Amino acid sequence: MRIETLAHAGEAAAADFADKSVLVIDVFRATSCIVTGLACGCTGFLPVLTLEEARAAAEIGDVLAGERKGKRPEGFHLGNSPLEYLTFPVSGRRIVLSTTNGTRAIHSALREARTVMAGALLNAASAAQALHDLGRDVCIICSGTNDRFSLEDGLCAGVIAEELLQLARNDLVLCDLTQTMRACWKQDGGRLAEVLAGSANGKRLMRNGFAQDLAFCGQLNLYRLVPVVQNGLLVPLSAAEKNRT
Amino acid sequence: MRIETLAHAGEAAAADFADKSVLVIDVFRATSCIVTGLACGCTGFLPVLTLEEARAAAEIGDVLAGERKGKRPEGFHLGNSPLEYLTFPVSGRRIVLSTTNGTRAIHSALREARTVMAGALLNAASAAQALHDLGRDVCIICSGTNDRFSLEDGLCAGVIAEELLQLARNDLVLCDLTQTMRACWKQDGGRLAEVLAGSANGKRLMRNGFAQDLAFCGQLNLYRLVPVVQNGLLVPLSAAEKNRT
Repeated sequence: MRIETLAHAGEAAAADFADKSVLVIDVFRATSCIVTGLACGCTGFLPVLTLEEARAAAEIGDVLAGERKGKRPEGFHLGNSPLEYLTFPVSGRRIVLSTTNGTRAIHSALREARTVMAGALLNAASAAQALHDLGRDVCIICSGTNDRFSLEDGLCAGVIAEELLQLARNDLVLCDLTQTMRACWKQDGGRLAEVLAGSANGKRLMRNGFAQDLAFCGQLNLYRLVPVVQNGLLVPLSAAEKNRT
Repeated sequence: MRIETLAHAGEAAAADFADKSVLVIDVFRATSCIVTGLACGCTGFLPVLTLEEARAAAEIGDVLAGERKGKRPEGFHLGNSPLEYLTFPVSGRRIVLSTTNGTRAIHSALREARTVMAGALLNAASAAQALHDLGRDVCIICSGTNDRFSLEDGLCAGVIAEELLQLARNDLVLCDLTQTMRACWKQDGGRLAEVLAGSANGKRLMRNGFAQDLAFCGQLNLYRLVPVVQNGLLVPLSAAEKNRT
């Protein structure tokens, strides 16, 4: 089993996902929102690329969510803060989501991957377990920011690589970037809050009044839920398996 | 002073180098060769993109060096192994060099950077000192391999970032990737030989009979010399300063 990591969403366009399990990570904040929204009982997330597509896809009862330049688009119910999902009535509703980096990475993977899942620090251990259970080669896409690497996504890739090694110590091959992220996690995972606060996106979130998002998204393994794409919709892995049987 | 790191040569095409000091790293093996060749007394390295350019640029007395797919091109005096420079008569001669990743990264930087230097594990501390002395923002290009990140270049970026922090603790800003590489170095730098041997390029070098290159290129701070581009030629920094005065 080979574990490969891509440094940002821009690298996903040319990547080979055939027969792989793909895990998309966007800790600040798309995949943290997806995990939180599903934990709050929404029926699924429809990831779309543009705001126009989002508006066109939204049906009565749907929730419109997303961001451009870190802010909630006009007319949308929710921005890109996972904390909003804790208070907004999302239970039983579908959420149409468009963000700058995370949903783009998901769309690239949908091209040919066998399975596309969403990972965050919030569900890192469960995501690793799901990848392990699938038993196929893994590609982790760190969404990054505007085609550049972001530290928070790399740390999340690192902890998931470490978890995967714990689960299947013998037959794992880590690519160079996966090895680097694992080493970074081992070095800095113990002071996660401090390192996240020092990252470029962490600083920007604090400048823009989202310090609480930083603390929330930095919680390791708060949820046991793994979002997986089924018929174009991100749903909890357990629900997807139930639908299949 | 800002320290930015690029994950591979492919990212250099779109990067902004204006007014920056650029350090190109290709541990396996172009910049290790350049450092070694200059230490052995060659007068300078002319980095060119294609084999045809190399053949056309070579004048009587020049040494032709380079690689394609890790091997010495037909009719070239030297391949891409730094050990060859220790025995081949390079002293007093100019070397025309074309490699797949390293010379491409150097050419991208020459577009607009104020200063372009070459770094390797062999000269990491001296390269950091030179960047510190210049006092400008720094961009470290990890050449990588075919537009993918390579662990050995990342470790070298990490040790140079760590050295820079030691030299100027207060006013340094590290980009997310530089922070990651520094953490990786702090985690894995103590078992450098083992980590290099486990990297993708390390394994390939060993498969192709270049295990000695792995050991040679992995020597930290063997040389105090820093190659810098002057009039299109990589020469030792001290010589470049002498020519300027």
